[in-house]
Amino acid sequence: MPEPLINEHPHKRLNLLTGEFILVSPHRSKRPWQGQIEETATDSRPAYDPSCYLCPGNQRADGTLNPKYSDSFVFINDFSALLVDTEKATVNEEDLLIAETERGICKVIAFSPRHDLTLPEMETDDIKKVVDLWQKEFIELSQESWINYIQIFENKGAIMGCSNPHPHGQIWAESSLPVEILKENRQQQAYFEKHQKSLLSNYLELELKKDERIVVNNEFFVALVPFWAAWPFETMIISKRHVQDISQFTEDEKIDFAKTLKELTVRYDNIFKTSFPYSAGMHQAPVNLGEQKHWHWHMHFYPPLLRSASVKKFMVGYEMLANPQRDITAERAAEMIKQQSTIHYKAQ
Amino acid sequence: MPEPLINEHPHKRLNLLTGEFILVSPHRSKRPWQGQIEETATDSRPAYDPSCYLCPGNQRADGTLNPKYSDSFVFINDFSALLVDTEKATVNEEDLLIAETERGICKVIAFSPRHDLTLPEMETDDIKKVVDLWQKEFIELSQESWINYIQIFENKGAIMGCSNPHPHGQIWAESSLPVEILKENRQQQAYFEKHQKSLLSNYLELELKKDERIVVNNEFFVALVPFWAAWPFETMIISKRHVQDISQFTEDEKIDFAKTLKELTVRYDNIFKTSFPYSAGMHQAPVNLGEQKHWHWHMHFYPPLLRSASVKKFMVGYEMLANPQRDITAERAAEMIKQQSTIHYKAQ
Ligand SMILES: O=P(O)(O)O[C@H]1O[C@H](CO)[C@@H](O)[C@H](O)[C@H]1O
Ligand SMILES: O=P(O)(O)O[C@H]1O[C@H](CO)[C@@H](O)[C@H](O)[C@H]1O
Repeated sequence: MPEPLINEHPHKRLNLLTGEFILVSPHRSKRPWQGQIEETATDSRPAYDPSCYLCPGNQRADGTLNPKYSDSFVFINDFSALLVDTEKATVNEEDLLIAETERGICKVIAFSPRHDLTLPEMETDDIKKVVDLWQKEFIELSQESWINYIQIFENKGAIMGCSNPHPHGQIWAESSLPVEILKENRQQQAYFEKHQKSLLSNYLELELKKDERIVVNNEFFVALVPFWAAWPFETMIISKRHVQDISQFTEDEKIDFAKTLKELTVRYDNIFKTSFPYSAGMHQAPVNLGEQKHWHWHMHFYPPLLRSASVKKFMVGYEMLANPQRDITAERAAEMIKQQSTIHYKAQ
Repeated sequence: MPEPLINEHPHKRLNLLTGEFILVSPHRSKRPWQGQIEETATDSRPAYDPSCYLCPGNQRADGTLNPKYSDSFVFINDFSALLVDTEKATVNEEDLLIAETERGICKVIAFSPRHDLTLPEMETDDIKKVVDLWQKEFIELSQESWINYIQIFENKGAIMGCSNPHPHGQIWAESSLPVEILKENRQQQAYFEKHQKSLLSNYLELELKKDERIVVNNEFFVALVPFWAAWPFETMIISKRHVQDISQFTEDEKIDFAKTLKELTVRYDNIFKTSFPYSAGMHQAPVNLGEQKHWHWHMHFYPPLLRSASVKKFMVGYEMLANPQRDITAERAAEMIKQQSTIHYKAQ
């Protein structure tokens, strides 16, 4: 890689998973910031909040009482965007107004009974229980023959639209393939047909050899800043073994995945000594659609912060209308994440 | 259109311009909001701010003094993401790390010498002068044979990453086609080849006939909420005449375009009695790439607000990882915009 191109000049990098380029302007990271400053989360939550609809024993929007759960806990979202009983219907007016109904299930997973924790502040053993639940939910949901895609994700932090600080994530399972999945499906399929190996196996091999963007390298999982990252501190966890989805994780892999999650998110929190916000989620093979050998399980982390706990990257004008853009390079971001301690700043 | 599908059930609608679906969950607009509340802009700016780098006569980051301009004023961005003198270079490691340098010009346009105005608060005659300048800049930039795409846009409001409230927009001109343009190019080309008419001509004709999503209908321009809108109050201005770019606008069209901009943005401000934030920008045919008959000029408005001046729509977890999603329908949003007065709330 000719160093000056990457380190100094504006350039585009190809996102292998979507087939789309992102614009990098490394020289621009010196730009002063006079724009919006985010409020930083005040971090003094009680272990139990009587007004929180996720705390054990509390009442939810529909009147149900939560069980007095001690690990993690899952339920159908009281304000689900997708519903189980939507009937099939399509619209097509002159090939110009095209629509169809969509059927699905939206679930919420509380990661811990403790209102005041987040993934990086939880014990690895307790994160492992969340991994177990994700696996169980994935297997159960894929047993519904009409479900074709299952999105497991977490919005962390108010800045990422999270409306309750109690540690939790979501699962949206649905009957058709979302747009990002269609892109990744196409790209991985084309690669697999050509090379008889998964795109991410070969990509991971090259990244491990170069060691310029690797952040965590554990027994079964790697966390790295992808070459084509769009968000300043974007990362991706990739399984070393080529599996299609979380149902295939072994017990050892689940333990290692929990460990990898812990290490990555602790480092995130340490960068700006703040509860690091992000949207994160697994991309997995579609279900009930036959063999999906070309799919390789991975998990994306999209954190919005750029310069401090209160200055984020805005994906706005040019980015919305034309092309995602970043200033700081993927290599520099990887360095910054790797430099962080694996001990949480609150525990130091 | 079967009414229940649109008004009550979760469904997907096809964005004709990108070829991608968006998810609509109409039943979900009743969801209570306990999440992040944005700060609303305090609206007491002076007509001239001695510390503003866009006000007439003031000094910019590089030491230059702004002229004492009386209409609008354009200059090269002091922190350009793209640079004119970037040399061509490409990278390809095993078809896995793919990058190339990108050359471009980034400009800033101050819309008015008055620090305290915004487009909706400006006189239509003064907006017309901005339109004149956009046209002039587009023509001049397209004379550079190495430029292939010109993005004219505005980020309005701190919530949209705008770092200076002085009314201004930007132009990024570059050597390759950005990802959103590639999508719209493909879709418009396929349609034009099949129908010998532009996609947006036929779409506009159908929308005018149905009159369910039209917001402004002037002599030469229409503003509407597209059937496939993703943002709550997203709109699109379409030229009634099938032209490729702003260089083809006649004098009468430019006056009518200024009038349409004024009407749309005044209505926006009136919805929540606030300076309505958005990212907006024109999509136009690529330049210096031969005939582009399939392209039809249009301008997108992507405003983030959802329920009030301080509660926005978060395009986060599911949206980033899977598929853009909205709650309120395009038809309901169009109704709400249309109901607004065309007299700005501050002048009422
Ligand atoms: O150039 P500005 O106004 O400083 O910056 C703003 O607009 C740019 C173009 O959409 C974005 O890349 C930046 O993230 C945003 O803060
Ligand atoms: O379901 P929640 O947490 O209330 O809502 C949050 O996540 C959803 C899924 O990413 C988004 O659609 C919402 O905009 C966001 O506020």
